[in-house]
Formats: sequence, structure tokens, C-alpha cells
Amino acid sequence: MSDLQGGCALCQSTGGVLVATGPHWRVIRVEDPAFPAFYRVVWTEHVAEFSSLSGSARAECMSVVCAVEQVLLRVLRPTKVNLAALGNVVPHLHWHVIARFDWDSHFPQPIWGEAQRRVESATTRLAATLPELDHEVATAVGDLSCGD
Amino acid sequence: MSDLQGGCALCQSTGGVLVATGPHWRVIRVEDPAFPAFYRVVWTEHVAEFSSLSGSARAECMSVVCAVEQVLLRVLRPTKVNLAALGNVVPHLHWHVIARFDWDSHFPQPIWGEAQRRVESATTRLAATLPELDHEVATAVGDLSCGD
Repeated sequence: MSDLQGGCALCQSTGGVLVATGPHWRVIRVEDPAFPAFYRVVWTEHVAEFSSLSGSARAECMSVVCAVEQVLLRVLRPTKVNLAALGNVVPHLHWHVIARFDWDSHFPQPIWGEAQRRVESATTRLAATLPELDHEVATAVGDLSCGD
Repeated sequence: MSDLQGGCALCQSTGGVLVATGPHWRVIRVEDPAFPAFYRVVWTEHVAEFSSLSGSARAECMSVVCAVEQVLLRVLRPTKVNLAALGNVVPHLHWHVIARFDWDSHFPQPIWGEAQRRVESATTRLAATLPELDHEVATAVGDLSCGD
């Protein structure tokens, strides 16, 4: 498929705060006050399903996902990291990488589930500012070192 | 970590209909009448986060996930496949692999989101029976051929 598909939101716009760009992907941060440590790894080529990628492309993609995950684990010490490639609304391959905390509004439910509690100012509870976190993510995906 | 952790549901029980077993993983089918084509790839070792795996283990794990995904795409022609590793409730690495259809009860919401419509007998709408689907999945993950 071509790199740019008419009508695809992730072909036509960045989709969030641009944190890093690689040869076949970009990392953006989703601006969600309830889940402030929420990144997406967007594959540049317009493909819908992860298994459409070649083995080497899948490895590259998951290395980026893992690099983001490891920054979240190291810097924020979350209760859990959630990974998901859904794409029901925007069928252009993108991985959600979300730091979850036992105090967040939905834990242990998925962020798409029912809220469990009211939480004010989630961003200020993080162990780093979002610019600091973005910087760490950008550095890590630049290295693509993720434990290999 | 050890392979068996006390108190972990996925260390202590299969977790669903056992479809296939590999050297480091098993594939189970979740018995969910609303989402009948719902498989999980459970990593045998008790690790919480995907990025805790080595590069080769991650590749093996995602090859299994992709093999299941490709069976769902080929046999069922779903609108989308959803992949997720959440683990907020059971922090033992397992990948959800779920065939989604534009007619299903929650589409385009994630299965954890709000129902969009009432659907009766989702299983009978599939293009294969669940035993047929299980057989295709078991064959595919046995081959681990997933497009490489």
C-alpha cells in the first residue's frame, strides 16, 4: 500500500505531540489528562494489521514499543504498562503504550473501560514532567537498545 | 523468575480452552459469547511486561500472536483484529488476539468499552465453527510460519 492514504487520520496528521521520528515510524504522546504517560508508536506505512508487516519490520516496530515501555518502567515505576494495537476507528497500525498506576481513574480496568474513581491532576503525580519524559523516550528510541 | 508463581491465575490454571502448546507459550481460547473468536497467547514464564523478554523471546512470542491473527483474518474476514497485552488484573504476560466485526456488540469500541448494540448468537455468525477455528489456529502456531 502507499504511504499516504486519503482519509486516514494517521496518514494526514501527526496524531499527537511528536516525540521522535524513525525511518519507518514515529512516536507521539497522546494528550490525555487522565493518562498523561500515554504514547503511541505509529507505523509510517498505511497497513491495518500488525501481521501484515514482515518479520524484520515487526521486530523493528516492537523494539520501538519496548523502548518506550522501558522508559516508562524506569522513570515512572508504574503499576503496569498496557500495550494495544486496536485500530477499529483508525485502521492504520499504531501501538498504544500506556503507563498505568493503581491510583489512576480506571485501574485495574483498561483505559477504555469504566472509571473506578475520580482523580485530579494525574500529571502532577508522575515522577517526571512530560517534557522530561518525552526527552527520555526520544533518547531511548533513538538508541533502540531495548535489552537486546 | 520461576515458571510458577503462587497466586498467579495463569501459572496455576490454563485460563481457557487449551488450543496449542509450544516450548515457551500456550494458546488458549477465551469462552466469551460476545467475542467468540478471542484467543490468548500466554507466555509460560511468569513475567509481567513484554519488554522483560529477550529480543529472541519477543520475536517468538509475536510470531505466535501473528500466526493466530493471520488465521482469524483468513478464516473469518473480520473487520479488524485487536491485539493487547494489559495484565492489570493478572500481571502475567498474555496477548489478547480478538477478531472484531462491524456487527459485534461493541464495535468500534474496544471490547472493554461501552456496548454499542445488542447482538444475539455471535458465534453462529462466524464463517467457521469454533472447533474448526481452533484446529486452524493449532496448525498455524505449530508451523509458526507467519509470513517470514
